[in-house]
Amino acid sequence: MARHIYQATLRWSDMDAYRHINNVQYLRYLEEARVDMMFTLAQGEGAKTLAEGVVISRHEIDYKRPLVWRAEPVRIETWVTRIGAARFTLGYEIKDDDEVYATAMSVLVPYSLSEQRPRRLTGEERAYLERFLEPDDKPRAAPRGARQDTVGPAVPS
Amino acid sequence: MARHIYQATLRWSDMDAYRHINNVQYLRYLEEARVDMMFTLAQGEGAKTLAEGVVISRHEIDYKRPLVWRAEPVRIETWVTRIGAARFTLGYEIKDDDEVYATAMSVLVPYSLSEQRPRRLTGEERAYLERFLEPDDKPRAAPRGARQDTVGPAVPS
Amino acid sequence: MARHIYQATLRWSDMDAYRHINNVQYLRYLEEARVDMMFTLAQGEGAKTLAEGVVISRHEIDYKRPLVWRAEPVRIETWVTRIGAARFTLGYEIKDDDEVYATAMSVLVPYSLSEQRPRRLTGEERAYLERFLEPDDKPRAAPRGARQDTVGPAVPS
Amino acid sequence: MARHIYQATLRWSDMDAYRHINNVQYLRYLEEARVDMMFTLAQGEGAKTLAEGVVISRHEIDYKRPLVWRAEPVRIETWVTRIGAARFTLGYEIKDDDEVYATAMSVLVPYSLSEQRPRRLTGEERAYLERFLEPDDKPRAAPRGARQDTVGPAVPS
Repeated sequence: MARHIYQATLRWSDMDAYRHINNVQYLRYLEEARVDMMFTLAQGEGAKTLAEGVVISRHEIDYKRPLVWRAEPVRIETWVTRIGAARFTLGYEIKDDDEVYATAMSVLVPYSLSEQRPRRLTGEERAYLERFLEPDDKPRAAPRGARQDTVGPAVPS
Repeated sequence: MARHIYQATLRWSDMDAYRHINNVQYLRYLEEARVDMMFTLAQGEGAKTLAEGVVISRHEIDYKRPLVWRAEPVRIETWVTRIGAARFTLGYEIKDDDEVYATAMSVLVPYSLSEQRPRRLTGEERAYLERFLEPDDKPRAAPRGARQDTVGPAVPS
Repeated sequence: MARHIYQATLRWSDMDAYRHINNVQYLRYLEEARVDMMFTLAQGEGAKTLAEGVVISRHEIDYKRPLVWRAEPVRIETWVTRIGAARFTLGYEIKDDDEVYATAMSVLVPYSLSEQRPRRLTGEERAYLERFLEPDDKPRAAPRGARQDTVGPAVPS
Repeated sequence: MARHIYQATLRWSDMDAYRHINNVQYLRYLEEARVDMMFTLAQGEGAKTLAEGVVISRHEIDYKRPLVWRAEPVRIETWVTRIGAARFTLGYEIKDDDEVYATAMSVLVPYSLSEQRPRRLTGEERAYLERFLEPDDKPRAAPRGARQDTVGPAVPS
């Protein structure tokens, strides 16, 4: 039940003409945190298949305060809020010890690159993800366009 | 009541190692569409102040199908779904004539660069935005962390 | 003996905190011009193999004046300055009608993706490239580290 | 007479559809190394003015071998090869202990943001740069278009 911690390096060029880190780059930092959690770490933990293909179904991000480039990395905390048969959901915070710059969530779908289609989570993947499980107990509406028939309701029933 | 249309040019380097347009770059295309709508077009239409500062409060994006690089641009349709006192909401589709690659929404907050704080929409800005108004009549839950006190409920009451 | 013309779209986010187009992004525009010349156009012209793999051996770029984001594209003129057995050299200008923002050159090496090694130009590729040939008659020193033995001198002897 | 060492973090998205780090991103890593050398480190060393504005006049880069994404950073070694009145030249290597991925050089020009024009190096800046001086004794031709009248010959006479 631990959060995954990733120290994301900011690049000077991540700032835009407003001299703040550009909002789109926050998603880039989340990607780097996921790569560390799904590729680098999971490979050492026996869930190599997560690295072979996971596609993004949805992102939500709330910007809390501006982030300006500095040499020190920013911390990305990532955890798992829901594990379904063929998708799972991550929560994130982009933060320093005493500031939260953004909160976000992503819906991810395991994907078979060889068959070019979504697939179910394996038991080993599920076990790996459960280590980071911290269920989001706030009810959420299903996103528009969610294909509820294939993966079940987005909120616990 | 027209949608704003922007033809976004894909760059070959927007593809990642999976040989699809990287999911983060979709947000980049939305930014280009907003820049066209808020900076370039609004300046010619009398709402110059929109170009002087609008910050992103929230993004949501749903990926519908993969997009592969091609020389032809992709169409970004943008419209306004809600106009509040000090924020407004955009809806988007990233699409070709017969395919939708993603749908998205953003919450934007007019910002005074000189005073470094959020500000209210001017009447001129509101009039400009109303040209693109296409209210989203589907009820939506308020996002986590929405500062509802400052801008009113995110869903029509 | 014509130059290849590509209209490169600037993105607002190509500007950095100095509010100029970041110097690295100029190389990105050159890449887009090459992709148009090597992939899109060459495929329609019978030299499809150029699209299957060309690697960059060297870039040189001279920045002449700052470029600020605008909705209008900037013109990239590209031509071929030298065709060797297993490499060729491009010249570029990034410009408007009355301004030159940068001049550049690249050394490119045809590459066999299946064999994972450099290969010689085919006759068809050579014929395609010759259409853009505009030899650079200014003597140039060989770059440090140039593998002169494999491709002959970089300056006419 | 020491080289400046910067450990550049690769991002997974720096890879392109060929599954190698894209050639343009190498220039991004050089930028991060320069930012560390000119902004972060120089500020602590008394040469704060370097951080207030240095523009790029020229880059040259030679690609030696492909670089594939990995969690470990790559080392950028940077040194000063020439200090002129109003410009200076950096040499770089992008490397691991036993591999060199690219060598490069940049010509930089101190720039006064308030006056919007090039300026001369101060004594303090020169003293800072001399700590990294490792003159390049190989004769080099002047680049095309070098404005030799303003800054003197690019090669020692």
